[in-house]
Amino acid sequence: MSATPSLLFYADTHASRDLLYFGRFECHDPFLAFAQEGKKIAVLNALEFGRGLKESGFDEILALEPLQVEILTARAAASPAGSPPPPRPGVADLVALLARKRGIPAWTVPDDFPAGLLERLRALGQTVLVATGAVMPEREIKTAREAAAIRAGNRVAAAGFAAAEDLLRRAKITGKKLVLDGKPLTSERVRLAIEIACLEAGGLALDTIVAGGDQACDPHCRGTGPLRANELIIIDIFPRHTATGYHGDMTRTYLKGRASTEQRALVDAVATAQKAARKVLHAGAISAAVHGECVNVFKTRGYETKSTPQGSVGFFHGTGHGLGLAVHEAPRVSAPVNEPLKLGAVVTVEPGLYYPGLGGCRI
Amino acid sequence: MSATPSLLFYADTHASRDLLYFGRFECHDPFLAFAQEGKKIAVLNALEFGRGLKESGFDEILALEPLQVEILTARAAASPAGSPPPPRPGVADLVALLARKRGIPAWTVPDDFPAGLLERLRALGQTVLVATGAVMPEREIKTAREAAAIRAGNRVAAAGFAAAEDLLRRAKITGKKLVLDGKPLTSERVRLAIEIACLEAGGLALDTIVAGGDQACDPHCRGTGPLRANELIIIDIFPRHTATGYHGDMTRTYLKGRASTEQRALVDAVATAQKAARKVLHAGAISAAVHGECVNVFKTRGYETKSTPQGSVGFFHGTGHGLGLAVHEAPRVSAPVNEPLKLGAVVTVEPGLYYPGLGGCRI
Repeated sequence: MSATPSLLFYADTHASRDLLYFGRFECHDPFLAFAQEGKKIAVLNALEFGRGLKESGFDEILALEPLQVEILTARAAASPAGSPPPPRPGVADLVALLARKRGIPAWTVPDDFPAGLLERLRALGQTVLVATGAVMPEREIKTAREAAAIRAGNRVAAAGFAAAEDLLRRAKITGKKLVLDGKPLTSERVRLAIEIACLEAGGLALDTIVAGGDQACDPHCRGTGPLRANELIIIDIFPRHTATGYHGDMTRTYLKGRASTEQRALVDAVATAQKAARKVLHAGAISAAVHGECVNVFKTRGYETKSTPQGSVGFFHGTGHGLGLAVHEAPRVSAPVNEPLKLGAVVTVEPGLYYPGLGGCRI
Repeated sequence: MSATPSLLFYADTHASRDLLYFGRFECHDPFLAFAQEGKKIAVLNALEFGRGLKESGFDEILALEPLQVEILTARAAASPAGSPPPPRPGVADLVALLARKRGIPAWTVPDDFPAGLLERLRALGQTVLVATGAVMPEREIKTAREAAAIRAGNRVAAAGFAAAEDLLRRAKITGKKLVLDGKPLTSERVRLAIEIACLEAGGLALDTIVAGGDQACDPHCRGTGPLRANELIIIDIFPRHTATGYHGDMTRTYLKGRASTEQRALVDAVATAQKAARKVLHAGAISAAVHGECVNVFKTRGYETKSTPQGSVGFFHGTGHGLGLAVHEAPRVSAPVNEPLKLGAVVTVEPGLYYPGLGGCRI
C-alpha cells in the first residue's frame, strides 16, 4: 500500500489541460485518471477505450463498464431478494472501488476538481486533499520539444497574419470605407481568411480578434462589421497546433490609409514598451519588473492608465502570460507577480494601449 | 437580506456552458458571476469589463479591480505600521466581500464548481451548498429560438458533408487507394475541406471525425492517413454555430467503391435501428425504451455486442444525447436512463455498429 496520496483527475481535456499533460490523450467527455507509484492510469468507457490504448500516454487503461458491473453485482448481492435494482454506480463509487482494490489510502485532487464529486467522495469515506498549488508544475518549464511545438503554433499564426495582410493590402479605400471585391471589408471576412489559412497551416484559430477603431479598446472584443480606413486594427491570433495541441500567440496592429501623428505616437510607444520588456526578459527576471518596463515607457510618454464607468483606458492588462497546452497558463508577466521567471518558461510579451476615440494598439 | 442561497459561478464559458447560458457572455478566462433576487451579476476584470457591458446578458457588471483595492485597503488599515504589503486578494476574498456588502447569507454552487475555491470559501466562513442536480435545468427545454439555432448548426454540418461528398465523388479508385488530384485522399484532407466549408457556412467544426476501416471502430477516433476504396467511412460533424453558440451534430457513413454484402447488411441494420428509434421518439417516451429499439433491431439481426481486451464490438454506446450550447448535454438517450423525454428537449439519434475487419457504421 502506497503511503502518499495519489493524484486524481475527473475532467475532460478541453477543461483540464493538466489532465491532457498528464495522459497525453485528448478526450472531450470527462473521465477518471489517477497516478499510483509513478504509473498513470485512466478509466475509459467503451467509446474511448480502444483509442486510449492506441493513442494515449497512460501506462494502464481500465475499462469503465466492467467496474460498473462489479459494483452493481456487489450491491445486488447485498440486497434482500425482490429488492428493486440498485442505482447505477456514480463516479464516486468507482473511485471508492479503485481505492479499495488497489490499496490507495488517500487522494490529491487539483484546485479545479469538481466540488460535487469532492463531497461525494468524502461522504463515501475517501480521504481527499485539494492541492494548494499546481498539480503539474513542470508544465511551466518547456522541453525543447514543447518549445518547438509552440514555434509551430506561431508559424500557424503567421500564416493567419499573411492572409489578413493580403486582404488589407488588396482592399481599396473609398472615403473612410475599406472595400474588397466590391464588398465592405469586415472583421468577419478577415477573421474567416485567417481561420482558413490557419487550418491549412495545420492549426485551429479559436476566438481570433480582428477589431478596429473603438472596438479594439475592449481588448477581448472579437470585432464585428466594416473595418475603416485610417483606424488602428488589432489582430490577435492564438491558434492550437493540431498535431501537438500547443498554442502559438501573436498580436499585431495594422492601419490601412493614413496614420495620424497621435496614432503613430501610440504605436511607437507600444513597440518601444515591447522592446524594453523583451530586453530584460531572461530566466531569473522578476515578472513584475518585466511588466514595469512597459509601465515606465508609457508613464514617461504621458499615457495615463485609469478606469472609467465605461471601462479602463491606457495599459490595463498584464504584459504577458505563459503559453503551452493552454493559451493562458503560468507564469503571468504582470504587476502582482513578484516571482522570478524560470529557465524554460515560455511567455508572451504583448503590452497595449487603448483610448476610445484614438484607438487601440497591442504588439 | 435574501433568505435563499444565491447561485454562484466561477468558471470560463468553454468549461461551463451553464455559465454561458446564465449570462449569455462568452469569456474564456474564469470569472465570478452570481444571482441575487432574480438579477444576474458578473465581476469582470478590465480586459472584459467594457465588452461585458456591451455584449452580455448580465443585469449588473462589477469591475474587479476596485473590489481588489477595497480589500487591500482594508487589510492595510488593519495591519500595524511598517507591515509588509498584504497579499493580493484571491477569488474567495472577493466572494466574501460581495456576501458582506450585498447581504448574501449563503451560496449554491454547481457540481463542477472548483473544489479548491469551495474549500477557501468555507475557510472564510461562507456557507456554500453544492447543488445536487443541474443548476440550469431549463437548458434541457429548448425555446423556438434555441431550436432554430441548433438547426442553423445542422445547416453548418450539412455544408461540411457537402464538401466531403464532393471530394469522395471526385476521387478516383486506384487498386484499393482513393486518389484525388494526384495525391492520396486522406482523413486529414477530407477533414480540412469540412472545416473550411463549416467556417464559410458560419460555424466552427471541432474534432470532426473522418475515420475509415478499422479506425472507425473506435467511435471517437478522429481518423488519420489514406482513406481506402471499398471501406466504410464514418464522418461525424458537430459544429458550433458561431453567431449563437449552439451546436449541430450529424453523422453519416460513406463507402467509395463496391460494398460487400456484409457491409450493406451492417448499414441497413443501423439505418433500420435509427428509424425504429425515431419512430418512438416523442415527448414522454422513456429514454431507455428509445435506446432499446436500436438494441432490438441489432439483436434480431444477430449483431452481437461484447467487450474484448482490445475494446468493445457491436453497439456499445448510447443512442443519443441532448444537443445545445454543449455537444453532449442532458438528456442522454441510453440504457440506464429510465426517465421520460421532456417536451422541447433536442436529442441526437445516432446508433452505430463496429466490428474490426468489417468496419463501423453510425447514422
